Formats: sequence, C-alpha cells, structure tokens
Amino acid sequence: MADYLRPLLYLALSLSPVLAHDNGLALTPQMGWDTWNYYGCDVSEQTLLMAAQAFITYDLPKYGYEYIITDDCWQAPQRNATTGAPVADPTKFPSGMKAVADQIHSLGLKFGVYSSAGKYTCGGHFGSLGYEQIDAQTYAEWGADYLKYDNCYNEGLAGTPRLSYDRYANMSFALNATGRPILYSMCNWGEDGPWNFAPVYLIPARLVRAVTYLTQTIANSWRISGDIYDNYNRYDERCPCTSMIDCKLAGFHCAMTRIIDFAAPVGQKAGVNHWNDLDMLEVGNGGMTYDEYVTHFSMWAVLKSPLVLGNDVTNMTNETLEIITNDAIIAVNQDANGSPAERMWKVPVASGGDLSLWSGSLVNNTFVISLLNTSPETQTVTVNFTDVFIDQGPSYQTGTYAIYDLWQRDSSGAWGKNIGTYTGAIPNVEIGLHQVRIWKAVPATTTSKRDTAEL
Amino acid sequence: MADYLRPLLYLALSLSPVLAHDNGLALTPQMGWDTWNYYGCDVSEQTLLMAAQAFITYDLPKYGYEYIITDDCWQAPQRNATTGAPVADPTKFPSGMKAVADQIHSLGLKFGVYSSAGKYTCGGHFGSLGYEQIDAQTYAEWGADYLKYDNCYNEGLAGTPRLSYDRYANMSFALNATGRPILYSMCNWGEDGPWNFAPVYLIPARLVRAVTYLTQTIANSWRISGDIYDNYNRYDERCPCTSMIDCKLAGFHCAMTRIIDFAAPVGQKAGVNHWNDLDMLEVGNGGMTYDEYVTHFSMWAVLKSPLVLGNDVTNMTNETLEIITNDAIIAVNQDANGSPAERMWKVPVASGGDLSLWSGSLVNNTFVISLLNTSPETQTVTVNFTDVFIDQGPSYQTGTYAIYDLWQRDSSGAWGKNIGTYTGAIPNVEIGLHQVRIWKAVPATTTSKRDTAEL
Amino acid sequence: MADYLRPLLYLALSLSPVLAHDNGLALTPQMGWDTWNYYGCDVSEQTLLMAAQAFITYDLPKYGYEYIITDDCWQAPQRNATTGAPVADPTKFPSGMKAVADQIHSLGLKFGVYSSAGKYTCGGHFGSLGYEQIDAQTYAEWGADYLKYDNCYNEGLAGTPRLSYDRYANMSFALNATGRPILYSMCNWGEDGPWNFAPVYLIPARLVRAVTYLTQTIANSWRISGDIYDNYNRYDERCPCTSMIDCKLAGFHCAMTRIIDFAAPVGQKAGVNHWNDLDMLEVGNGGMTYDEYVTHFSMWAVLKSPLVLGNDVTNMTNETLEIITNDAIIAVNQDANGSPAERMWKVPVASGGDLSLWSGSLVNNTFVISLLNTSPETQTVTVNFTDVFIDQGPSYQTGTYAIYDLWQRDSSGAWGKNIGTYTGAIPNVEIGLHQVRIWKAVPATTTSKRDTAEL
Amino acid sequence: MADYLRPLLYLALSLSPVLAHDNGLALTPQMGWDTWNYYGCDVSEQTLLMAAQAFITYDLPKYGYEYIITDDCWQAPQRNATTGAPVADPTKFPSGMKAVADQIHSLGLKFGVYSSAGKYTCGGHFGSLGYEQIDAQTYAEWGADYLKYDNCYNEGLAGTPRLSYDRYANMSFALNATGRPILYSMCNWGEDGPWNFAPVYLIPARLVRAVTYLTQTIANSWRISGDIYDNYNRYDERCPCTSMIDCKLAGFHCAMTRIIDFAAPVGQKAGVNHWNDLDMLEVGNGGMTYDEYVTHFSMWAVLKSPLVLGNDVTNMTNETLEIITNDAIIAVNQDANGSPAERMWKVPVASGGDLSLWSGSLVNNTFVISLLNTSPETQTVTVNFTDVFIDQGPSYQTGTYAIYDLWQRDSSGAWGKNIGTYTGAIPNVEIGLHQVRIWKAVPATTTSKRDTAEL
Repeated sequence: MADYLRPLLYLALSLSPVLAHDNGLALTPQMGWDTWNYYGCDVSEQTLLMAAQAFITYDLPKYGYEYIITDDCWQAPQRNATTGAPVADPTKFPSGMKAVADQIHSLGLKFGVYSSAGKYTCGGHFGSLGYEQIDAQTYAEWGADYLKYDNCYNEGLAGTPRLSYDRYANMSFALNATGRPILYSMCNWGEDGPWNFAPVYLIPARLVRAVTYLTQTIANSWRISGDIYDNYNRYDERCPCTSMIDCKLAGFHCAMTRIIDFAAPVGQKAGVNHWNDLDMLEVGNGGMTYDEYVTHFSMWAVLKSPLVLGNDVTNMTNETLEIITNDAIIAVNQDANGSPAERMWKVPVASGGDLSLWSGSLVNNTFVISLLNTSPETQTVTVNFTDVFIDQGPSYQTGTYAIYDLWQRDSSGAWGKNIGTYTGAIPNVEIGLHQVRIWKAVPATTTSKRDTAEL
Repeated sequence: MADYLRPLLYLALSLSPVLAHDNGLALTPQMGWDTWNYYGCDVSEQTLLMAAQAFITYDLPKYGYEYIITDDCWQAPQRNATTGAPVADPTKFPSGMKAVADQIHSLGLKFGVYSSAGKYTCGGHFGSLGYEQIDAQTYAEWGADYLKYDNCYNEGLAGTPRLSYDRYANMSFALNATGRPILYSMCNWGEDGPWNFAPVYLIPARLVRAVTYLTQTIANSWRISGDIYDNYNRYDERCPCTSMIDCKLAGFHCAMTRIIDFAAPVGQKAGVNHWNDLDMLEVGNGGMTYDEYVTHFSMWAVLKSPLVLGNDVTNMTNETLEIITNDAIIAVNQDANGSPAERMWKVPVASGGDLSLWSGSLVNNTFVISLLNTSPETQTVTVNFTDVFIDQGPSYQTGTYAIYDLWQRDSSGAWGKNIGTYTGAIPNVEIGLHQVRIWKAVPATTTSKRDTAEL
Repeated sequence: MADYLRPLLYLALSLSPVLAHDNGLALTPQMGWDTWNYYGCDVSEQTLLMAAQAFITYDLPKYGYEYIITDDCWQAPQRNATTGAPVADPTKFPSGMKAVADQIHSLGLKFGVYSSAGKYTCGGHFGSLGYEQIDAQTYAEWGADYLKYDNCYNEGLAGTPRLSYDRYANMSFALNATGRPILYSMCNWGEDGPWNFAPVYLIPARLVRAVTYLTQTIANSWRISGDIYDNYNRYDERCPCTSMIDCKLAGFHCAMTRIIDFAAPVGQKAGVNHWNDLDMLEVGNGGMTYDEYVTHFSMWAVLKSPLVLGNDVTNMTNETLEIITNDAIIAVNQDANGSPAERMWKVPVASGGDLSLWSGSLVNNTFVISLLNTSPETQTVTVNFTDVFIDQGPSYQTGTYAIYDLWQRDSSGAWGKNIGTYTGAIPNVEIGLHQVRIWKAVPATTTSKRDTAEL
Repeated sequence: MADYLRPLLYLALSLSPVLAHDNGLALTPQMGWDTWNYYGCDVSEQTLLMAAQAFITYDLPKYGYEYIITDDCWQAPQRNATTGAPVADPTKFPSGMKAVADQIHSLGLKFGVYSSAGKYTCGGHFGSLGYEQIDAQTYAEWGADYLKYDNCYNEGLAGTPRLSYDRYANMSFALNATGRPILYSMCNWGEDGPWNFAPVYLIPARLVRAVTYLTQTIANSWRISGDIYDNYNRYDERCPCTSMIDCKLAGFHCAMTRIIDFAAPVGQKAGVNHWNDLDMLEVGNGGMTYDEYVTHFSMWAVLKSPLVLGNDVTNMTNETLEIITNDAIIAVNQDANGSPAERMWKVPVASGGDLSLWSGSLVNNTFVISLLNTSPETQTVTVNFTDVFIDQGPSYQTGTYAIYDLWQRDSSGAWGKNIGTYTGAIPNVEIGLHQVRIWKAVPATTTSKRDTAEL
C-alpha cells in the first residue's frame, strides 16, 4: 500500500496518541503572516507588532490567521559568546524576543521565528547547524510557537534524502525535546523530496469522535519549491526546473502558477499535520491582477498549503482584504479532512497556458472542485462528473449535486452562492483569462459505501 | 556478461544448494490473496478466514493460489511493552495471530503478514525498522509463511541503492535466521532499483533433474512501481514518473497498463525465485471491463508477476472466477522456466494508445506470445515470427508452430484452443480495443541447438 | 527565503567581519592570466615572467588584471621525499617558485598556482588530496596569492554534494589556516552543484559605507562547466550535457555560447566574493571572429565571471588588446554591486541560434543591458523596458533612461557612447550575426523606493 | 584544465614511472578472445585450449591477439573450505587452472580469468567481494595475466561513484599487491561513470623516446554499457537507456550501433593504458551481415576499444577471418597515440538511422577518418576537412592529404589502398547502407606547430 489511508476506515483506530512528543499542531494548514515577502531583511519588533495589531484591527484571527513570524535578519551579529545561545539584534529588537512574543501572545496571537539548517542563514547570519538544541531551547524560552527552518549554507549536506533528513530531523527532535509545542515548518526548497522523508502522520477520527494524531516523523509542513515571486506565470531562469521531483536547483523567482504545477504530483503526500508548503502568499503585493490573486489564494487553499500572508497587512486595499478573508475558501483550506485537491486533467491551450480541473474531498461527504484557466483567453468548459469523481466511482459520477460558487456571495452576502443543482456535469462554464472557479459540491443523492471507499 | 544465464547451460551446474539459509521459495511467482485492494485498513481474523474459506469453496488451491495475506492495520496500537515484540490488534484478532495462522494452515493454505521498513507502516502503525529480529522471530512463531515489507516512514534511508539495500537486507537476514522459510516480498515501490540490488538467484536444473536453487541475496520478489489502481490506462498525477528506472516519486494510482510499461525494461532482472511484482490484482473490483481484466491477468502472468488476488473472493462473479482460474494462463505464469516475456516491439496508434508484441520462453522449447492493443479501436496485426523469435534466431523465425489461443477453450472445454499451424507469421490478427491475445507456440519443426542457445 | 538579499537592505547590517579567517578577496571577480589555454603543459618560469612583463608593457594592471597563474605541469616528478612538500620542476623553474613569486610581486602583480583535489592532477602530476595542509602551507611560503584547484583523479569522491564539499572544503580550511589571503578558485567542472555548496557570502555596504564581508563557506569562485574551447557555438560531443544543473559528464570542448547557456540559471547563486567561473578567456587565440570575441568578453563580464586571460599576452593584435582593455565593459564586471546579469528572455531563431536579452543591476541605481544574437543572420529587435526591468517593477519599466553603448567610443575616445534617451524601450535595434550589444542605462527619472526593493 | 594533455607537450615530462605498482599493461587496447559470447557458461579447459590452438593455427598473435580469457562459470561450487581460495570446477578443469595457464603460456599467449565485484558472479558462482586479496593472489599463482571483473550481486554498493570506486579499487590494489602484472578489465556496465573514477594515466613519450607510463588509479579498461548482442541496430528494451552518462539500468542486448552512440561522449576519457571497453566482439557469430561486421570491427578499432573476439575461433569463415585480421584497421586500434576518434557530426536520415563522421589522431601526424551510414539506403556524402580537422585548426583544414582506404587492398594485396590526394574534402563519397569507410590521412603539406597543438 501507499502512504495513505482510506478515510472511512480511520474510525477503527485507536484514539490515543502514541508518541508523547508529538506537537499536536497543524491539524489544518497553518495561517499567519511572515515578514519576508514585504520587508525582506528589514525586520524589527515594530514590524512584527504593527502586523500583530493589524491582525486585530482587521479581525484576521476570526478567519484563522494566528502566527506572526519573523523571517531572516532578526539576529545579532553573533551568538552569546559564553552560552552559544542565539541573540536577537538589540537595535531591531530592543525589548528582546521574549517581550515581543509576550506582546503577540497578549493579543491572542502566536509567534514564529526563523533559522537555517546551515552554518549561516540565507542572509548571512548565524545558522543553527550544530546548534539545534540550544536554539530550540532558546526559542521555547522566548515563547516561540513556530519555526521556519531554511536551507542555506548547508555545507553540502544534501543530495540524498538521508543527508537532508538528518539535518532537519535534528531540529525536529530538539524542538520536541523542549516540551513546548512549536510548529515546525521545513524550508529546504523541495530538495531530496521532503514529501518522502518528512511527513507527520495523523489519524483524524471523524464524525462523533475527536481528532487525534498518531506519529511524528519530522515536520508539520515543508516547502516544495524555490521561492515564489509576485508574478502570475512568467518563466524566470532563476527557477529552472520543470518539475520538483528531482530538481537540483530549486532557485527562486518561481511564478505563482509554476508552483501550482510543482504541487500537483505531491498532493498525495500531504495530509493532516503534514502539509505541502507552496510558499508565502503574495496577495496584495501588486504584481498580479485581482483575478490572478484570487487564483493564487484559492489554489493555495484547495492544495492545503499553509496560508501565510506576505503583504503589508497594515495597509491593505479592499480587494486584498476581500480575498484573504473569503471564509468559504478558507473553510476549504481548513477542512478537517485534510486532503489536497488532485489535478484530474490538464490540457494545453493553443494560445498558451492550459486549462485544468482539480477535485478534493471535504468532510461530510462534500467536495471542492476547481477549474483553472491560465491561458490568455476566455474559455468555455464543461466540467464532467466522471472526471471530478474519478476517485469516488460510478455512483458519484452519475450523482446530482448542489453546487456553490465560493467566489460569489449569496443573498445574505456570505461567500458561497448556490448556483443550482447539476447531474453528471456543470455544462458550458465560461471562465475568463487567468481566472479560477472554486465550487463546493454537496450530494443531493445517496451514494453507496462501496463507492465511498474506492480510491 | 549480464546477470542472466543461457537456459541450456544450466545442466552443467551443481545440484546442491550452497547456502543453508536460502528459503527455497517462489520457484514460480507466488499466488494468493491480500486484504488491501478490497478491504484497505479494515482487516480482521474474520476477513482472513472468510477469504481462506472462499479459497476452498472455489477450489482456488487447485490453480496454485495458496497465500492468505493480511496487509496493513493488523497491529495493536503498541508493541509489547516488555519484550518489544509486535502485537496484533486484540479487537480485530481476538484469537491471536498464531491461531489465525493455524486455521489457515489447517485448510492447506499459507499465511502472510505485512510490515514496513520504516518507523511506522503506511497506515501509521509500528514499523519494523530497528525491530527486524524480534519481528521476524515473532512472525515465525506465529507460523507466518510470507512477509510483505513496505517502505513508509523510512527516515530518508533511501536515495542510493546501498541505503535501500541495507534496510531490506536487514529483514532478509532476520527472516533467514528464524529457520522458517518465509517468502519475502519487498515493497519499496521500485526506489533505487530493487531489480539491481535485490535478486535472488536460483539455478533451475531442467529436463530429468530436480529444480535446485543456489543463492539468496535479498528477496523473492520486489514491487517495481507505486500502487496500482483499478483503472485501465488513465494517467493520474499521483503516479507521475514515465519510467521507474530512476523515479523519485513512485506514488500510487498507477493505472494497469502504465505498470505494464514500467515492467517492460526490468523483465530481464527477474527469474526463478526473484520476481518483479507488478502489484496485487484488481480483477473483480469493478473498475475495468472484462477485456481489460483479461489483459490485466494475462500480462501479469506472462511478465511473471506474483498473482495475488485483491478482490472480495467471497463474492465473485462468474466472469471474475473465469479469469482468475484460466489454468492455461496460470501455467504460463507458473512455468518452471521462469522467464518474463520481453516486449519485442511497441508502436503508437494515431487515435491513442499503442500495439505491442511480447514473447517469452517456456519449458520444453515452447513459447508464449502476447499481442496487446491499448488503443481505442480494433486493429489488424500480422505477428511475424522474425519479431517473436528475435532471441532464438533464424531457424526459429522460419519455423512452423502449432498455435494455441489461451483465451479460447478447446472442444473439451479446456483453455487453450489449437487455432492452427503457422509458418513465419500469424497473419491478420484482428484484436479489439483493450484486448490481448495470448498464444502458446509449440514448434512443429526441428530447431538447431545453436539457435536455442542464442541470446 | 532564497539565498539572496535585497540590495537596499544591506545597510542595516554589521560592518565588521565576523570570521577572522575570511580571506577578504574577490570582492569583484578576479582578473589575470593563466598559462593553460595557450601553453597547456608547457609552463616554466620564463612563460610566467614573460607574461608578467607583458602585463606591464601593455599596462594591463591599470584595467584590473593582476594575477599571473601557472596552471598544471609546474610540478617536479615527486614531492619532497622527506617532508612530503610539493616541489616545482627544477628544469622548468630553476629559480624555484618563491623566486618566481617574488619577481611577480616586484612588478606589482600577484602569483597563482594550480593543483587538483585528487591523487594526481589532470596532467598526471602529484595531486593534493590528502596533502592539503602541507600544500597550502607551501604555497603560502612561496608567496602564492591564488589557487586554481582542479578535479582529476578524485577516486570517486564525487556524486553527492557532500563528497565534493569535503574534498574542496579541506583545501579551503587549509588555505585559511596559513594566514595568507589566497584566492581560492574551485575547478570541479560544476559537479554536484558547487553553486549550492560553495558560496562565500559577503555583505556589501553601499553608498557611504565601506564594503565589508561576512562569512566564508568555501571558495571565491567555482567553475560551472567543462573546459571552454576556442569556438563560438559548435556542439562538440566532448561537452555532452545540455544543462549543468545535474550533469554527470562535464567534459571539455564546450563552445563559448554553450557556456553562456550553462551560466544562465546559476547567476542567482553568485555575488560579491563568490563567483561563477565561466572558464578562462580565449580572446586572442584565433578560433573566433572579432564580433565573437567581443561577445565572449562582454558576456563573461556581465555574468561576473572571473576575467582570466588565456592568450599569448606577449604577442597581441590590436583587436585583441582593444577587446580586453575596454574599461567600460570591465567596469561592469568589476561593479561593486556584484550582481550577475539575468537572462530575461531567450527566443529561438528559425535559421538557428537564438536571441536573448540580459539585464543586471549596477551601483548607483544604474543597469547593464545585454542583447545577444547567436543566429546566423542580422536581426532587428525592440528592447522593451518591461522586460529589462522585470525585477525592478512598474516605475522602472515606464521610466526614461540615458543609454550608453559600451562598445562605441564617445567623442573623447572613451568607451561608452551616449546613444540617446529612451522611454519604455530601445526600438528597432539592428544586431548583426554573432554580435552583442552592451548598454548601460542611467535613469533620467525618479523611481520609488518600493520598486527598487522589489525582487 | 580537463583530464587530457596536448600530445606534443608530453615530451617535456619525465620518463620514469613514478609508481612501482603500475602494471604497465594495455599501452594499446588489449586483444584476445573470451568464452562468453559463443560458449556462455559452457567453459572448460578444452574450450580454452582449443581456442588457444586456433590462435596459433590462424596466426592470430601476429595481428596482436594474445589473451585467452575464461569468462564466468569456471568455478567449483565452493571456495576451498580451509583457505577460502577460489577453486576451479574439477570437472571442467581437471588439470587445474595453473596447468591451463601454463599450456596457454607455452603457446606464447596470455591467460585471463573472470570474477565479479559482488557476492556472486552473474552466473551465481562465488564472487570476489570481500575476497579480493586471496582471489588476486590465487589468480597470480595460477599465472593469470588478465582479470575481467563483473558487477553482479553487488549488494547495493553502487549509486554513487564512491561506492563503485571502492569495490573496484579494492581488487585493483589486490592485483597490484601480487607483484604480477595482471591487466585489469572492469565490467561495471558504465554505472556511476567509470570513465570519471577509473582512469589509468600514462604518458606516452613520442618520437625518439620510449613510451613510459605514470600513474594508475584503478583499471586498464572499463565497460561503458550493458552487454552487446549480435545485432546491428535493433532497439531492445533490455538495454533501455538512451545515454550511459547517467543510466540506472545498463541491461544487456545492446545492439552494436547503440554502443557506438554510447561511446561517443566518453572517448575523451580514454587513452593509453585506460580504455573504454565497448564489449567483446560478435564478428563471426552470425547476427549481422558482412558490412555490419566490418562496421563493428572498424568502429571498435577507431574508438580504441579492446578487441576481444567472441566467436568460435576454431571454426571461422573466410569473411570472418578477413575482418579480424585486417592489419590496417588493427594498426589504427593499436596506434601508440591512443586517442579514440571523436564524432565530428551526426545527422539523421529521413528514412531512419543517421550519417556520422569521426576523426582521430594517429602517430606521426597522421589521422584516421571514419564515415558511418546506419541508414537503410546508400548515401552520397562530401567529407569536408573543416569538419575532420576541427581539433587541428585552419592549416590542417586547408591542407592536402594522401588518403588510404583501409578496407581496400593495394596492388600488393595489403590493406590500405591509396585512393588519391585530396585538398579540403573527399567529395561525393558513395556509401552503402550499413557501411563504413575508414580512411587514413597522411598530410602532403606542411602544417604549423601552432595548429598541431590546438585542441
């Protein structure tokens, strides 16, 4: 068998966690904000606290956003000369990291830090390779709830899964040893297949029982590619691989839709507690159109990527705010089922780009369907249920569904307008260039158990 | 020289096994039934014993089926706290594994278990990495005759043949050390080329002498790809590689004919006691047509894959039963020669799919020929003996053969109807969409020794 | 984040080097001359000193050329039998290496040596594998300022980044331990991705502050491919890979424009103190036309390759001298910003070859633009600023620039003629076969900080 | 620099070997006969001695053939139980191996044995992994002059160059330690790039001085691919890789012209004392036409492969004997320069196959030119000297040459007919399907030193 379980069979399993050190986090993909995409190296306690305050102002925790994460460059030039402990830059963080964490906590939010599984961070600050224990311990003492762990200056300790595993497992064990639950976000750019060696496994007990989790191998999420940049689909030579399955130069400047392509084959490896990280969001940073940012946010959501904002949250347009607070889309991302949507087909368009159909399972026998048009022209597409429900089998394929468009509001103003009931297909969907459709499908007919268990 | 021997030269070799610990099993590909494809995680002593009983009811042992294998999820939440020994789930297996094995044995069948060469099994139960000795010993004490050994949670111990070898060799040695012959079925999804590092070698002494075997390196069979799914030919992104020779993401949801493609180049590496495992059968599970299941069963047979049923054997249609009990096809699979058929040509069809011709050697100077049509249309093909007998040389190519169609019954109702005598070719074969032809060819003319020994 | 920093954010960082052993060299790509491309194995103190004298004669140090480097074959047949120290061939170097270095130093130049991270050098002389300390120490005693470190006879110590890292790091540490700043030029032909494991990081403090550097991991530069040969674009089977990202046979006889292709994706990995080495120059060796050598020199410059001459500098044509002393082009190479140009687009030409556009940042908010025509015909191209300034954003894209053609002389005879002011594009550029255009762009309009920081 | 030296520069180097243990063998590619291609496992002292006697009968030593090599299956079932020493099968070799070697030596020939760098040989006999010292010592005691060392059952000790290097270096060191010069022929099927890690280097001193050799790293020759089979160009799935540069399944049944393709990029890595082995010859085994065997023998010769016969030398047709005794072709193979020909161009032919031009340097400033037609039709080709003399430069390209066709006899009956003098090209060469032309070119004009030294 492959590394998945049939959903309905989970019920038979034990409810008690078997490993005391499991951090119990990321039951759904983490949500928050990180300094990098907007501020780069220009971090400080002000930038963090202003963002935290903006979370409150905009009521973002209501939608699930909770982590305030400093990315690189928070460090002093050197570690503590006596203890070897990491030290924050006293100019940027005059109050100290613990005080910053306390203030963030006092707002009901959580605090994240950053380091690298190398001799230095990508910005040339001290890295954590060889300092895993003291670093994890110090982060815990500061009150950190999250660690983003980068891959720069790794001294050649990559190239086989084992080498990468060892570097990242060392920090995982150190974080667990602190006793504080710290969400562990691996960022090795997809090198050596982290989806193969890093998964955390968790057993969701459905319906009447509480969700429990079983085992941890390494991390709660792992980046699958080089860094995103704020662009819809441009090929940039700095992101040279056409697939991440065996890429030797992850690079950066990976356009948004290229990362979606990278994510397609590895969705199978993610699930509750162990997520594919498609990188932080660019929504609101200005490099894409409204429709493109809608696609960006929607596809990150249905692929179960962490949703970590990367814009200036203290200064958002209404459009940006509307996108990141679409609670129907967020509900898909945070669905307890934890199943990334799979790409059911992808067909090239003669004028460039392609059309693709995605489908994913949600709790309560409901489904999310995504239709993506990366071509430069409006397209008309019939969405056949034989394609949508490949994994569910014939009775689903011929079934009838109430369809909700998650980017339309219903009469009450809530996201998710019922656009009708469909049998066998949603016919003749007109979809504009660079648009996406995200539908929730709710069965209107009974389906058999046999079909449900089908993989 | 490559890792093969010329069949007729085997006679000169010693008959006595040189390694006492060789398990002596899988002289032909193993046959049996496994819980996974139908029940997934939902295993219990009832499911196993019901299947065993169905074997008797349907007279399956007569055809060679003998192993009743529990796949994943038979485990208790934890190992024995004192001894570290594996423990079966007391709810699912209230009688205990030994009692289950005893009952299976009492029916004249054999019993198989499952684990993973990792910290956990794919279903999140305790794995055997680091517990090889106690696990092998316990399986032996239970009376297990078979181990399927999976690849989940391997902690990055993959990526070079050596890393994979070590994990799988540890269990091999542990199984041998028990003294009980336990068929060892590796399931590392083709990572790092198990066909290169795992073969068991066996010397079949032909004609008047008994079959003997010589050496064991690791395993009796190894999976060559990600998991099959019950579909004829659909590309699914969860099975992303186009070849398994250097695939870094084996995945699952590999359609049946894709696995046939994966198998084509590695047939050379299999033989008596060391088989390419194309994964468990889906015949009877409903995702393919009758013709497609015939192709599935037939090609698994001629490629010398283990034939491990994956359907509900307690409830089979006549069509399903007919397919899995075609004793002429099974005889090809179980032929003592142990030579997987090779693909002699493959040509694409304009409307999609392709035509391919396969040929393999059987005992007593007979041959199996397979013609496969994965296109969506009926095709007419002339099967030239210059192609069929590439390996045998000119006199075979110009020879005359009695041809038996193994999917037609003769006048007595037995599979394998003589459809005539052919010289140089079987002309103008009409073959429907998604059909296969499996012929046995028996020479009607004398062939020279030189040609026989030709490779 | 990826391994880069936003330029304007460097200002916030510490100015003091944190590692005492950092060699502080190669703040801009090294410039000099090496014996190999012209003399091959035929080195001697005469060849070195004649070249050094020619440097003075032609006033090359004024342009930045400073290193006089002996390549392979300077060695005696054996090391010192007592000490194990390397010994120079007494016939070729009768004065001894120290005397040669002294004479080179006395001319105000620097001295470089050569060895291999293997049992032997490529020419079969003793290599440095296992002799790193004594070799580095001896080089330092001789007064060496530079080491080119080759990859032959490495005994299989390659194939994972870690194996290559260890071999090259050993010499790096040994060089640092000598206390003498010795520029370390790795030459492992791009195996295992030296751009991933070898970078030296350096923080350039801009504007009013001095440039400082922070950390050293391994080397000051690394070769990215097999050896160049004196040819514009011919495919030679001895340089078989189409990309160096995962090449297993770097080879040699790599034509000049093929190396440019190899360099495109790895520009991102280079910067101040850590350069991609495109190999030594062939300018003046006769295998290319004037236009082709102009392209060679120009593209090496804008890609921030070391500029190490490989011709007979004692005997240069006026054309050769003109090319290698174009101080406007050299200024691009030696720009303190240290940013290799990136390829913004590349389009094939029907008659063969392609057109490509490159863009790079220089200090003081200026830019270098390169247009390359490898096709066999004159082309007319409009250079759009939306392409040139992809990284800088909209206000740059719509800005107005004074454009200087660095291969035209101004009225005073200096390289870099102002060819006008352009907004949005340089329209209808006519570019001959195998020509290059190198322009410097100086903004004539104000740009916002936000755009500048955009990556 | 890459791992080559300019020929004319060798003169400056020392003449004395620096490593006492260098075996001094294979100054030119080895020539001989091996049991495998004809007899497979069916070896015995009779087969060897009959072949040795046939060498004398047919006067083969005159042409350079000297090694009589037993391939696999010479072994007894087990090693000597007391000493662990290898033992020959007493039935097949009743006189013992030493006696066989003595008889072969008494005929003025040399004796070769076979083993595998694994637990077993490919035929399932005891292998040498872990027994290198005693095996090498025993071979030396028997009087063996040659070892073919295979790759089966290597227990996963492959996948990085280091793992393969270690297995093969262990035997290399053991052979050297015996003090007996034993030609070491690696047969790891090209895995992990033996051309990168295995070369022996040797310095040929030209003209008036004797050939000397410098260093040994591992082996005298290495196989570059899976096993050949007796077929001109058929694609066989058992040889699935399209290039050997990073092939993970070398396989066997590699058609002859496919091996030529495999050899093209690695010619650069071979030279005096370290050869690419294209596998044993099939000439005379019946699977190819006369023209195809001429191509086979010729291309093996110009690519400087060992020429190890694989047919029944006791029973040869006149055609076979003529091919293998063409002393003009053999002289190319045995030329002291040791430079494999390089493929200068390859162009596909619409009807299938391709045309290619090859060129190589011979001693005394002469050259070999090869034109190959693998298409199914006669072709007319003008061979331009600008292509032939790419490496030699302009004055060679415009020079005049006496051209000798090495497959035509001159008026005295000797191979190598002068077909005229040509300047700039050999125009309008008509070449039949599956034919080859092998010409020797002797300059009729003076060329400059500069051009000669050009690479």
